[in-house]
Amino acid sequence: MKKIGILSSGGDCSGMNATIRSAVRTALRMNMEIVGFRKGYLGLMKGDCFTLDSKVVSGILHRGGTFLQSARSPEFRTPEGQQKALAMLKELGVEGLVVLGGDGSLSGALALHRLGFPVIGIPCSIDNDIPFTDMALGVDTALNNIIYAVDCIKDTASSHARAFVIEVMGRNSGYLASVSAIATGAEFALVPEREFDLAEICQQLRARYEEGRDNAIIILAEGVGNGQTIADSIKDAIGFETRVTVLGHYQRGGAPTVFDRLLGSRFGKKAVELLISGQQGLMVGLSCNAILATPLADVIKGEKRPQDEVLRLAEVLGI
Amino acid sequence: MKKIGILSSGGDCSGMNATIRSAVRTALRMNMEIVGFRKGYLGLMKGDCFTLDSKVVSGILHRGGTFLQSARSPEFRTPEGQQKALAMLKELGVEGLVVLGGDGSLSGALALHRLGFPVIGIPCSIDNDIPFTDMALGVDTALNNIIYAVDCIKDTASSHARAFVIEVMGRNSGYLASVSAIATGAEFALVPEREFDLAEICQQLRARYEEGRDNAIIILAEGVGNGQTIADSIKDAIGFETRVTVLGHYQRGGAPTVFDRLLGSRFGKKAVELLISGQQGLMVGLSCNAILATPLADVIKGEKRPQDEVLRLAEVLGI
Amino acid sequence: MKKIGILSSGGDCSGMNATIRSAVRTALRMNMEIVGFRKGYLGLMKGDCFTLDSKVVSGILHRGGTFLQSARSPEFRTPEGQQKALAMLKELGVEGLVVLGGDGSLSGALALHRLGFPVIGIPCSIDNDIPFTDMALGVDTALNNIIYAVDCIKDTASSHARAFVIEVMGRNSGYLASVSAIATGAEFALVPEREFDLAEICQQLRARYEEGRDNAIIILAEGVGNGQTIADSIKDAIGFETRVTVLGHYQRGGAPTVFDRLLGSRFGKKAVELLISGQQGLMVGLSCNAILATPLADVIKGEKRPQDEVLRLAEVLGI
Amino acid sequence: MKKIGILSSGGDCSGMNATIRSAVRTALRMNMEIVGFRKGYLGLMKGDCFTLDSKVVSGILHRGGTFLQSARSPEFRTPEGQQKALAMLKELGVEGLVVLGGDGSLSGALALHRLGFPVIGIPCSIDNDIPFTDMALGVDTALNNIIYAVDCIKDTASSHARAFVIEVMGRNSGYLASVSAIATGAEFALVPEREFDLAEICQQLRARYEEGRDNAIIILAEGVGNGQTIADSIKDAIGFETRVTVLGHYQRGGAPTVFDRLLGSRFGKKAVELLISGQQGLMVGLSCNAILATPLADVIKGEKRPQDEVLRLAEVLGI
Repeated sequence: MKKIGILSSGGDCSGMNATIRSAVRTALRMNMEIVGFRKGYLGLMKGDCFTLDSKVVSGILHRGGTFLQSARSPEFRTPEGQQKALAMLKELGVEGLVVLGGDGSLSGALALHRLGFPVIGIPCSIDNDIPFTDMALGVDTALNNIIYAVDCIKDTASSHARAFVIEVMGRNSGYLASVSAIATGAEFALVPEREFDLAEICQQLRARYEEGRDNAIIILAEGVGNGQTIADSIKDAIGFETRVTVLGHYQRGGAPTVFDRLLGSRFGKKAVELLISGQQGLMVGLSCNAILATPLADVIKGEKRPQDEVLRLAEVLGI
Repeated sequence: MKKIGILSSGGDCSGMNATIRSAVRTALRMNMEIVGFRKGYLGLMKGDCFTLDSKVVSGILHRGGTFLQSARSPEFRTPEGQQKALAMLKELGVEGLVVLGGDGSLSGALALHRLGFPVIGIPCSIDNDIPFTDMALGVDTALNNIIYAVDCIKDTASSHARAFVIEVMGRNSGYLASVSAIATGAEFALVPEREFDLAEICQQLRARYEEGRDNAIIILAEGVGNGQTIADSIKDAIGFETRVTVLGHYQRGGAPTVFDRLLGSRFGKKAVELLISGQQGLMVGLSCNAILATPLADVIKGEKRPQDEVLRLAEVLGI
Repeated sequence: MKKIGILSSGGDCSGMNATIRSAVRTALRMNMEIVGFRKGYLGLMKGDCFTLDSKVVSGILHRGGTFLQSARSPEFRTPEGQQKALAMLKELGVEGLVVLGGDGSLSGALALHRLGFPVIGIPCSIDNDIPFTDMALGVDTALNNIIYAVDCIKDTASSHARAFVIEVMGRNSGYLASVSAIATGAEFALVPEREFDLAEICQQLRARYEEGRDNAIIILAEGVGNGQTIADSIKDAIGFETRVTVLGHYQRGGAPTVFDRLLGSRFGKKAVELLISGQQGLMVGLSCNAILATPLADVIKGEKRPQDEVLRLAEVLGI
Repeated sequence: MKKIGILSSGGDCSGMNATIRSAVRTALRMNMEIVGFRKGYLGLMKGDCFTLDSKVVSGILHRGGTFLQSARSPEFRTPEGQQKALAMLKELGVEGLVVLGGDGSLSGALALHRLGFPVIGIPCSIDNDIPFTDMALGVDTALNNIIYAVDCIKDTASSHARAFVIEVMGRNSGYLASVSAIATGAEFALVPEREFDLAEICQQLRARYEEGRDNAIIILAEGVGNGQTIADSIKDAIGFETRVTVLGHYQRGGAPTVFDRLLGSRFGKKAVELLISGQQGLMVGLSCNAILATPLADVIKGEKRPQDEVLRLAEVLGI
């Protein structure tokens, strides 16, 4: 193998730059050429790429997002799009590919692998919903962004007699909501993995209120319910003012934490080493502090859910 | 004067604790007793207060919000409410009052003053909409909170071909929007002080886009327009994905910046000194680096608007 | 068991408050009384303690240090000191004890256990030098503090032609130095686990310099060598200005990260549950994302060293 | 004027990039070419420069340091060095120059002005020791860096019975020390503008200690005394452990605050406007919220000292 490529696809997250830098430095040490495709599979199909050297990846380690840019590409999901990409890789002389992304992007990587092209995936998703890795890239930074904002909102909540419903990301996963609730001392975390009874929650909040605790934070996982509806119910039940804040894309970016810089650095190095050693069709993952590889096919079939312990802990430490 | 009181009213902001601490330490040095009323004028009318000593205000300087809590009180706006407060102050032996708050709270302070009670106001409002002070307390911290979030969102915006409309607080003032746009390199700041033409903005964004700049940040002052409507117009005009983020109450809290800790410390000390020296019916304010006092009556009649230079600068440095 | 105690001992770290809060809330849910001893074993011997309820531990989750305070106590290392503590525990009716601390504090816990008193240890040490836990409490926050400072210093280093030698904590462990070097893109990490040849480092720095890279960051683990001597050698060898910064106690404090808040919350809950279930003489630890317990005797005999992979990664990603 | 130059000289500070970006954007709007010299006067003498366009200054606003790099140049202090620079400016067709730097750099600017070359200075110095500007660029960011570290250290100090002597930058100015002492609630600020009696300080610390306050923070302005000597005296006098931390170059860097981004943006714009309007030999400065210009000759002759009010406030709010 003389030349490999790398791309980031789907939603961006903090740590992607650290990952790319590590992959590039590892490839260069092994005397391999490495090119970066712009905007994920979109750039791959168009051959929109450039050579990555030591200088290009200098000064990016601590920056959020991905300097290769990312995009979603419906075309690449079609067999025609995938053939186009394969032809382009051949034309460019690229013999292996590292793909950073979430489950959609990893499905794309699996498609290329099934067409016989050597590819290694790297799990990137702030939702922490990718199986076969204890943590996906970007989760730790997103969590720390969340608690920074929630800590600020708590100052306001406790200065007034107010409840706040704060919606965090997570798609179908309650991981961000559960962990940030534990980490901020929120009263409730409403997550897709556990049913909840809004009436009972209001009753518990009222009981707290009668004990003199006149403010509360409820962390709501995106998709579990409408923040405003929940806020209105709380206001009706208890009477104190309730506000809704949707944290939004702020959660995704910012300088990566140590955890994500280290994880990305380990992922990037391992992915390139696997390609060079002739392995393919795998996703790297963190498992008990080691970086292991799992067949992409298993990843796509699998499902990840937050540890029960974490879900329970959110309840125990709450109200 | 043997005993004075202090309260925080209206929307909370970072730096209130530093202000209260400084007022308490100044009063104690001058051998004066000082009590804190809980929840603003609400606590004042009920006589819900406690003695503030050195220990009570230790460890609060760097914390957001107000440990005296705040509230809005419609009752205090009535003559009956004000008489109730006066009676309570008399009963408690409190001879002077320091009020932290925005324009509503300062109107309340003026009412007490007109009834003959010695009162000094301290301008607190993240919107920076209080006249006769260059900066109100809490503005600098709010601005730094805003840019932290916008810097994060920029990472995401520039990783994708995306525009973001980010709504910041400010009520009738474009100060937060203008300054944060300058400070984050946003393409546009939409503020109440300047009319804007959405069609023209879209045209300029399209021109940028054709030059290859495929992401943009638009800072929207609260109340100027609907974020989603603006986002939809941009999407229609240019075609790239546009997202809306409403920063919300996150802007209010968090550890105060140096500026707000220093400003609060100066305000608190000055307010107590004025009361002791027999002055009243004034608001302290920052004017050319000095702490000056202005009659509350002038403050309530006055109006503050962002410097033209700042508004223009936001335009020059934008697109 | 009706009543248990908790104390923090040795060097403080971020996350101790989260741990204590979780232990208290867990104990209260199980209808057990819990008291906190002030200043570690010092307070234990003197019986300087107070009842911990829900209110006392409210608002501390996000604060650095330990509100129970900590101290080192030579007296407690003696059999007399330990008997004094036992007698005091009996007098107070305390039937079990949770000890937060590093290896010295855990040795103390083991001593109490050997005297027949039920005790559970919680590993707290920013150095990450305690065996039988993947991470000790406080490490993640310390690392994030370190990279915040190093990122700042890099701005200055790259604005000038300068090398910086930055000394981080770690006692006999190179963990903080290795990981922070990876996470900040430092050129070298000098750690106790690996010998290094200063002459060769200077030669490599000179080679870099001749390629036009005129600044460098060297992370030095405390105790490995004298920062100024190393800086002088670099200056002599390459000729560019070299500065030394000792990060010091800044590394210990500050608001804990999500990781440390979650870890502390899990540790605190588990420690109390173990005591209640009649287990003792154990230390809780993080092992493959689960909280497990290990005999304190094994912990004290054991040794922890950074993973080889991390040490190598620091080298690969460096110069 | 068709073409101007810009350079940063002396110690770097946060906000330089925002300033350069603003100068470039202002020049481009006025259809003027602008070049950046690398490494200050060093690059000026060598003609080491490149054209600055919109793209080059994109993405730098929020980054610390200066992407033009800085350096100290003894050669430029000689008449020969200055003639060399003039000849180079002529050769390059550069007709005006913007200089970012502290007093040494501004003296260099004045020298060029006296030789007839149009030059405008911008005051950059985290020490806030440049007269005719209320604040120099970089001061606000440095202060916020300082309090972040001191807040962390306070967590540790209050967890143990400990005093910390924390040395901050400032050369001959006590501004950073005074303001950061106020902003962190430090017990003492030791500054060059006020004599202090170490014996008396120890006595006051002992009195506090006897009241039960067993920790203290002393902020020491660089150059006022030896941190370790002061720490030893305190330890001898009171008996509790005392640690020294020298914050060092960490203070200089990091993402600039809103204040420094705004100030830099205003300075950069004004400097270019002055050059274009034919004015020269001036330094821009912040005066009562407006950007004014002062002859460089007055700046170099002048002296700045912290406001007495600030120095006194540090004392009042301290012990």
